[in-house]
Amino acid sequence: MVGGGRGAFIGGVHRIAAALDGQIELVSGAFSSDPLRSLASGEDLFLPADRCYSDYQQMFKAESSLPLDERMDLVSVVTPNHLHFGPVMMALESGFHVVCDKPLCLNMDEAKQIRAKVKSSGLIFAITHAYTGYPMVKQARQMILNKELGVIRRIVVEYPQGWLSTALESTDHKQASWRTDPSKSGAAGAMGDIGTHAENLAEYVTGLTIKEICADLHTHISGRKLDDDGSVLLRMNNGARGVLYASQISAGEENNLRIRVYGEKGSLDWSQMEPNSLIVRWLDKSMEVMRTGVGNLYPQAQVHTRIPAGHPEGYLEAFANIYRNVAYCIQARLEGEEVDSAYLDFPGVDEGVRGMEFIDTVVKSGKQDEVKWFKLGNQ
Amino acid sequence: MVGGGRGAFIGGVHRIAAALDGQIELVSGAFSSDPLRSLASGEDLFLPADRCYSDYQQMFKAESSLPLDERMDLVSVVTPNHLHFGPVMMALESGFHVVCDKPLCLNMDEAKQIRAKVKSSGLIFAITHAYTGYPMVKQARQMILNKELGVIRRIVVEYPQGWLSTALESTDHKQASWRTDPSKSGAAGAMGDIGTHAENLAEYVTGLTIKEICADLHTHISGRKLDDDGSVLLRMNNGARGVLYASQISAGEENNLRIRVYGEKGSLDWSQMEPNSLIVRWLDKSMEVMRTGVGNLYPQAQVHTRIPAGHPEGYLEAFANIYRNVAYCIQARLEGEEVDSAYLDFPGVDEGVRGMEFIDTVVKSGKQDEVKWFKLGNQ
Amino acid sequence: MVGGGRGAFIGGVHRIAAALDGQIELVSGAFSSDPLRSLASGEDLFLPADRCYSDYQQMFKAESSLPLDERMDLVSVVTPNHLHFGPVMMALESGFHVVCDKPLCLNMDEAKQIRAKVKSSGLIFAITHAYTGYPMVKQARQMILNKELGVIRRIVVEYPQGWLSTALESTDHKQASWRTDPSKSGAAGAMGDIGTHAENLAEYVTGLTIKEICADLHTHISGRKLDDDGSVLLRMNNGARGVLYASQISAGEENNLRIRVYGEKGSLDWSQMEPNSLIVRWLDKSMEVMRTGVGNLYPQAQVHTRIPAGHPEGYLEAFANIYRNVAYCIQARLEGEEVDSAYLDFPGVDEGVRGMEFIDTVVKSGKQDEVKWFKLGNQ
Amino acid sequence: MVGGGRGAFIGGVHRIAAALDGQIELVSGAFSSDPLRSLASGEDLFLPADRCYSDYQQMFKAESSLPLDERMDLVSVVTPNHLHFGPVMMALESGFHVVCDKPLCLNMDEAKQIRAKVKSSGLIFAITHAYTGYPMVKQARQMILNKELGVIRRIVVEYPQGWLSTALESTDHKQASWRTDPSKSGAAGAMGDIGTHAENLAEYVTGLTIKEICADLHTHISGRKLDDDGSVLLRMNNGARGVLYASQISAGEENNLRIRVYGEKGSLDWSQMEPNSLIVRWLDKSMEVMRTGVGNLYPQAQVHTRIPAGHPEGYLEAFANIYRNVAYCIQARLEGEEVDSAYLDFPGVDEGVRGMEFIDTVVKSGKQDEVKWFKLGNQ
Repeated sequence: MVGGGRGAFIGGVHRIAAALDGQIELVSGAFSSDPLRSLASGEDLFLPADRCYSDYQQMFKAESSLPLDERMDLVSVVTPNHLHFGPVMMALESGFHVVCDKPLCLNMDEAKQIRAKVKSSGLIFAITHAYTGYPMVKQARQMILNKELGVIRRIVVEYPQGWLSTALESTDHKQASWRTDPSKSGAAGAMGDIGTHAENLAEYVTGLTIKEICADLHTHISGRKLDDDGSVLLRMNNGARGVLYASQISAGEENNLRIRVYGEKGSLDWSQMEPNSLIVRWLDKSMEVMRTGVGNLYPQAQVHTRIPAGHPEGYLEAFANIYRNVAYCIQARLEGEEVDSAYLDFPGVDEGVRGMEFIDTVVKSGKQDEVKWFKLGNQ
Repeated sequence: MVGGGRGAFIGGVHRIAAALDGQIELVSGAFSSDPLRSLASGEDLFLPADRCYSDYQQMFKAESSLPLDERMDLVSVVTPNHLHFGPVMMALESGFHVVCDKPLCLNMDEAKQIRAKVKSSGLIFAITHAYTGYPMVKQARQMILNKELGVIRRIVVEYPQGWLSTALESTDHKQASWRTDPSKSGAAGAMGDIGTHAENLAEYVTGLTIKEICADLHTHISGRKLDDDGSVLLRMNNGARGVLYASQISAGEENNLRIRVYGEKGSLDWSQMEPNSLIVRWLDKSMEVMRTGVGNLYPQAQVHTRIPAGHPEGYLEAFANIYRNVAYCIQARLEGEEVDSAYLDFPGVDEGVRGMEFIDTVVKSGKQDEVKWFKLGNQ
Repeated sequence: MVGGGRGAFIGGVHRIAAALDGQIELVSGAFSSDPLRSLASGEDLFLPADRCYSDYQQMFKAESSLPLDERMDLVSVVTPNHLHFGPVMMALESGFHVVCDKPLCLNMDEAKQIRAKVKSSGLIFAITHAYTGYPMVKQARQMILNKELGVIRRIVVEYPQGWLSTALESTDHKQASWRTDPSKSGAAGAMGDIGTHAENLAEYVTGLTIKEICADLHTHISGRKLDDDGSVLLRMNNGARGVLYASQISAGEENNLRIRVYGEKGSLDWSQMEPNSLIVRWLDKSMEVMRTGVGNLYPQAQVHTRIPAGHPEGYLEAFANIYRNVAYCIQARLEGEEVDSAYLDFPGVDEGVRGMEFIDTVVKSGKQDEVKWFKLGNQ
Repeated sequence: MVGGGRGAFIGGVHRIAAALDGQIELVSGAFSSDPLRSLASGEDLFLPADRCYSDYQQMFKAESSLPLDERMDLVSVVTPNHLHFGPVMMALESGFHVVCDKPLCLNMDEAKQIRAKVKSSGLIFAITHAYTGYPMVKQARQMILNKELGVIRRIVVEYPQGWLSTALESTDHKQASWRTDPSKSGAAGAMGDIGTHAENLAEYVTGLTIKEICADLHTHISGRKLDDDGSVLLRMNNGARGVLYASQISAGEENNLRIRVYGEKGSLDWSQMEPNSLIVRWLDKSMEVMRTGVGNLYPQAQVHTRIPAGHPEGYLEAFANIYRNVAYCIQARLEGEEVDSAYLDFPGVDEGVRGMEFIDTVVKSGKQDEVKWFKLGNQ
C-alpha cells in the first residue's frame, strides 16, 4: 500500500475491502512520507518493521528483491490525486499489479502515459469506482444490456453532498484542504471528486457513452479555488439525453448518488444510500422493487452478494468486490486458469482515462462565459 | 364553467375542487361546443337545462342578464389551451371573476392582453398551478422567506411523467391529441404542460426568479410535433444555480414533481406524490420530516389543512385550496371585508404571464443548434 | 345531518365527503342541541333558517312533512357514540336512509335493535369505516378473494396513534373528553375508537372472520377511565393467526393504520398514511408496488379512483367513496335501476354490529386477571 | 473456528466479520467432522494443513500445546445449536476465549453450565446477537437510557421472514433441515432462531427486562416439528406492554427485524433492513431521522461506524463490531490495559442464558391449550 497512514481516510477503506474476503493479505506499505509515521502506521496494522517503508521507491525496490513467494503481488495506491502518477508508473514498471484510487491522476497527459504503461505491461490494473461494485448496479447494467428497457432515452444521474457547504479547507481539515487545492486535486473540484463517479456510473449502467456535454460549474464558497457545484446537460452516443450533476454544497446531503435510466419500456432507479434495492418502473404494469438476493437476478448480481436477502450489504462490500475480483484474476493468472467472466467485472485503466476526459471536458465547458456543447474525445 | 363536458378530464377536477368546501355552487355551464353534449353534461351535474349553454358567448350574455343574486359570480375556464383566451377575455369584460386552467393561453401576446384586462377590470383572477396549494409547499415557502435555510444556492426541480412514452396521439386519446398539437397546446409540449408547473413551483417556493436558462429540448417519439422531454440549466436572480427538467417519456413515472432547494444552512425536499411530508436536511443536525398537521407549522401551512395529522390530503384538496381562497376573496369583496392574508395566497395573472415567458424562452433556447444562455424577460 | 355543529370534527369530514362528487346536497340539519348554535352552524353552511333544527326529533318530523322532492333522502348521524342510537332509530322509523359514524352505538343491545330495524325497514344503512373506501384496500381484498396469495396464514393489523399520550381530557379538549368517558364512548377507549377500524379492515381485506381473541388492554394515563393501549392475539376462522393492536399513547404516531396479510404465495402490506401504494411481496420473485391508477387493477379499485395516477388521493376521497356509493344506491332505488356491484361496496349494519361484538369481547378478554381465549360470537 | 466448513452459511459470516478490521487472523480450524472436508475447507482459507483439525477435541489439545505466540487466542463456535455445548465447554476449559453463535445451546441445563464455566474461567465470552452491533441500535439504547423518551410504555418488536413458507426441509436444504429438527435446534423453531434476536434486541434497546409473556405459537407447514410462526404479548418489568412476534412463514419477507419503542415524550423506530436510519417521532415536534455518522450521536454509536455518512454500513459491519470489541478486550487483557467502555459493549453469556430462558418460557406458554401469563425466571 502506498499512502493510507494514520489520519488518512480512504486507505482504511481499501484495507477493509482487501481483507474482507480473506483473499488478500497486507504485507507491506509506504504509508507516509514521514518514516516514523509510516512505521507507526504499519505497527498499527501488525506489520513487521522491515516491511514498512518511508517512500514508495524504496518499497518497490525492496519488495522486488524478495523471493517470489514472499514479495507482494499487488499494490494499492491510496494517496491524494497528485501522488498517483509516480507510484502507479513505478509499480507497473516493477511488475506489480495495481489498484489505484480514483480519479486516475492529475491530467490527460499523465492518464495517457499510465494507460500506455498498463497496456504494455500486461499487468492487472483496477481503479476504485466502487459504486459499480454493488450487486444491484450490476443487475441494472445487465437488464439494460439485455434490452429489458428497450432503447434508452433519458439518463438522470446526480451526486449531491453537503460536506463542503462551509469553507472547511480554511480549518485544518485534511480532506477538505487537498480536495480544494488544484495542485493536489487537479482541474476540477466536485466534478473530479464525485462527478467522475456519476459519469462512470452512467456509462457503466447503460453501456452507452457520453457524446457531448454542456456544463455550468460554479464555486459558491468565497475563496475556494475549484468548483463545488455543477450541472451538466448530457447527450449520449445513441441519442439519449440527460442530466448529470455533482455538488458538494448541497447542505444536508450525505452521499446521495442516484441514477435513473429511462427506456422505451420502463425505467430503473438506484440510489447508493439504499443500495440493495433497484426500483423498476414499467410502462404498463406495477412497479417492481428488485432486492439483493431475492428472486432470479442475473449471475453478475448474484456473485457479488455474500449473505442472504434482507441482510444489508453496504459500501465496504461493494468496494471489496473490486478487490476480490482483482484477487481472483491474479490467482487465476498465477495458476494459469480462466476466471468466470462474472468476476472479470471491475473498472480498469480505460475507465480511469475516461474519467480524466470527463474532467477535462466538463471544466472547459463549464468555465466558458458562453455555454456551448463540448464533445468528449476518444483520446 | 366553460369546457369540462362528458369525456373531459380537468373539468371534473375543477368541479370537485370547487365543491369540496361548500363555498361554491355550480350554477351554469357551457360544457361543450356541441349543444346536446353541453346539455347532457349539465344534466349529469343536476343543472337545469336553461343554465346549460352551447357556447360561452351565450352564457356570459345570458348570465349577465340574470338578477344579481341568481347569476354566477365566478367562471372556471377548463378548455384546452387555445380556447382560454376567448372566454377569459369575455368573462372579464362581462364582470365575472375567473379561475383559468394553466398554462394561461397560447402565447405572450395573448398573455399580455389578459394581464392588462385583469388589471383594468379589478376582478379576481386565479390560475390553477395547483401544486402550490399543498400545505407543505406553503411551509417550504415560508421557511425560505424567513431565512431558515440562509442564502439559497441551488435548486433542483423535476417533473417526469411517462404517459407519452408511446405515440398515444395517433390513437384516439383525446388528451394526448391536443397536448401534442401546436395549434391547441402552444409552442411547447412537455415544457408547457408540466415544465410551467416546475417553473412556477421553483419561483413560488424560493421567492426567487429565474434569470437565465440554457435548455436542451428533444422529441423522442417520431412524428410528434412538440417537445416531450427537456432539461434546463437555471441561474436565479440571486446567483443560485440549478436544474429544471420536464419529461413525458420517462417511462413508468406517474406524476413525480419534486423540488429540492439547498441553502447555506440546510435544504428542503418535497415530492408531489408524497405531499404531506417535507424533508428538511440540516448541515449539522438530524434530518427532520415535517408533516402536515404536526407540530408548529407556519399559519400558511396550517390554514390549508382540513383534517388531523395522519389522514393524507391529496391533489384534490390542494386544488380546492385555490378555489376556497378565491371564494373567500369574492365573499369578502361582496361584504366589504378583509381576507386574512394567509388565504390571499393563490396564483394569479402574473404567475400566468410568467409561465408564458418561460415557455417562450425555453423553446427559443432549447431549439437552437448551438446552446446559449437566454434571459427571461420581465415583460 | 345530526350533529356536526361549530367546533365538531367529524361532521365537517362527512360534509366534505358528501359534497365531493356533486351527488349529495346538504339541505337540513340538527347540528347542535343548542338551538342558536344549530342555527349559526346552518348559516355557516348556507342553509335557510327553517331547515336548521334544534333537535333531531323536530327535524325528522318536519322533514317528513315536506313534499317528496324537497325533503331530505338521507341523514348523516355524526354525534358522539352515545347519541347514535336515538337518531338512527328515529331516522329509520321515519323512512330516511342513514349514514352513521362508527362505532355503531354504545353496546350490543342497542346494536341488535338497530340491525333489526335496518333489516325490517329495507332502508339503506352505511357506517363510515372509511378506510375500506381506499382503492388499494379494495384491490387488496380482491386479490385475496381471488386467491392470488393462496391460503391466508397470518394477519398483522396495527393502529397506533399518539394524541392521548397526555391527560388531554383534563384540559378542555372536547374530542378527548367524550372519547375517554365510558358514558359517552362505551365500554372501550382505544379499542372502540380505532381498534374497531383495525378489526373491520382485517375482516374486509381478508374476507375471513376473527374467531377467537386473547387481549391485553391497559390504561397508561393515570385517572383515565378507558383503555388507551391494547394488544390482541387473533385466531381466524380458517386457522390463520395474527396480531391486532390499537394504541393512543404511541407518542409521535399520527394515524398509522397498517395491515399486512401473509398467504402461501406472498403477502400484502398497506398503510393508511401512504394509501396509494399496495406493496406485494412474493415468495419467489421481486416485490411489486401496486399504485392507484397504474396498470391492470381490479374494477373495484378502479372505480373508486377519481384522478390519474400520481395525483395522490387521500382520506377525504376514501370517505367520499362511501357517500357516493350510498348516493348511487339511493338514486338507483328511486329510478328502479340496478347499481353496478362494484359500487355496492360499503360497510353496512352487519359491519356495525360486528364492531360492537369486537368491543364487547375484547373488553371481556383484556380486563381479566388471567388471560384466556374468547370467542367472537355470531350474535 | 469450530464448524463453518464448505457449504455452511454462518461460518463465512464469522470469518468476514473477524477479518474486517484486521485485528483477528484465522490460524486454525476444525471445520467439519469429516477430516478431508475440514482440510479442504482450511485450504480454501489458505491455512496450513497442520492447523486444520478433524474435530474440536483434537484442535484444543493441539493448539494448547503450541507456544503462546503461535497458538490461537480465541475460538469461534459456528456449528448448529446442538453442537455448541461441547466445544464451548472444552474451549473454556482449555483457556481459550470464545465467540459462540446464537442461541447459546440446546436447553437451560446446558446454558447454566456454560454460564458457570464462563464465570469461573474469567475468560471472554461473546454470543453473536449481531443486530445489537449496529450503530443506530446503540444510539437508540443510549437515548432511552438517558431518558430522552421519558418512561417507556410500549414495545413492538417483530421479526418476519418468509424462507420457511414451504416444506424446504423435505428438500436437501441443509439450513432448513437442522433448523426444523428439535434434536439439533432445540425446543423452538422460529422462536429460537429469530425470536431470541427479537427478545435480545428489545431488552438491549430499552434496558428493561421482559417480566411476563403470553404466547400463541403455531406450525403452519404440515409435518414440520417446530413452530414456524408465533406471537407473544409482553409485559415488561417497569409496567410497559408490548408485542413480540417471529415468523418464518411470512411469505415475501426477507429479514425484516424491526423495533419500535414508545415513551412518554416520543418514540423510536429502527429496522434492520434500513439500519443506518433511526426514526424518532416526538410528541410535539417534527419527526427526526437520525443517520449513522450525521450530527451529534452518542459515542457508543460513533465508535461503531467506520466510514463517512451516506456510505451504507450493513450486517457484516455490525457483526464485525462484536469481533472487533472482543479483539480489543483480548488485546487489552494481554497488555494489561483498560478498554474504553464504549467498546466493552457486546452480548455475553448472560444474554445467551436469557435467550434460552425466553425459548423455554415461550414454548411453555405457546403450546398450552389454554393461554396464560408465564413469568420469565431469573435463573
